[in-house]
Amino acid sequence: MASAHQVVAAYWAAAKNRDWLTFAELVSEQVVYEAPQTRKRVCGRAPFVRFNIEGFPGDWHLAVERIVGEGQHAASWVQFSDAGAHYPGLCFFNLDEDSRVAHITDFWPTPSEVPAARTHLVERY
Amino acid sequence: MASAHQVVAAYWAAAKNRDWLTFAELVSEQVVYEAPQTRKRVCGRAPFVRFNIEGFPGDWHLAVERIVGEGQHAASWVQFSDAGAHYPGLCFFNLDEDSRVAHITDFWPTPSEVPAARTHLVERY
Repeated sequence: MASAHQVVAAYWAAAKNRDWLTFAELVSEQVVYEAPQTRKRVCGRAPFVRFNIEGFPGDWHLAVERIVGEGQHAASWVQFSDAGAHYPGLCFFNLDEDSRVAHITDFWPTPSEVPAARTHLVERY
Repeated sequence: MASAHQVVAAYWAAAKNRDWLTFAELVSEQVVYEAPQTRKRVCGRAPFVRFNIEGFPGDWHLAVERIVGEGQHAASWVQFSDAGAHYPGLCFFNLDEDSRVAHITDFWPTPSEVPAARTHLVERY
């Protein structure tokens, strides 16, 4: 039985390589993908694979910064790069009893400013 | 030896309860906190505790949505609430050999829109 860490590592390797058959096998037929920032949802393996292929057609790359797995849960932090821009992508995963990805919650934080009330408490890098 | 999951659960319980003595004991004297969205950084236990106390003076609450721990790493997803607004907060943690929090990378994703090119691939919730 693959660990949650191993499954998520394989998931990102398959996505990175556009190996959509392997990618599809790693997710449940009933997979649910949710992005709370946009309140968008994709349900089911075929629609989710299609979302990944057609939704992101560019010459993007990704690098895994961190994967943490525990039991049927995992979290990942990847660096997504497209047209010279870099975006951190953060996901929380639930796996089903067959070690397939059953639920993904996906976050894409964007650059922002430190509130003025806190600038004296931090340094910048 | 506490697991990374247990340490991060104690960290958020202490923050939620404004128990800053317990909070301070859970982090390394050399703790480094970084927020990539603002490129802000806080180094050291005393400045980091001060940042948490003085930087967030309101009547906020937090609820842990998920903690995932593996070895010396952990990730958390908390729901931060302040003045009727709710924000997801996502952290990746490194622990030192004494199971203290040595490094925190903190993300605060904000609401956004689905790009028009992808609206036909998703549903909304």
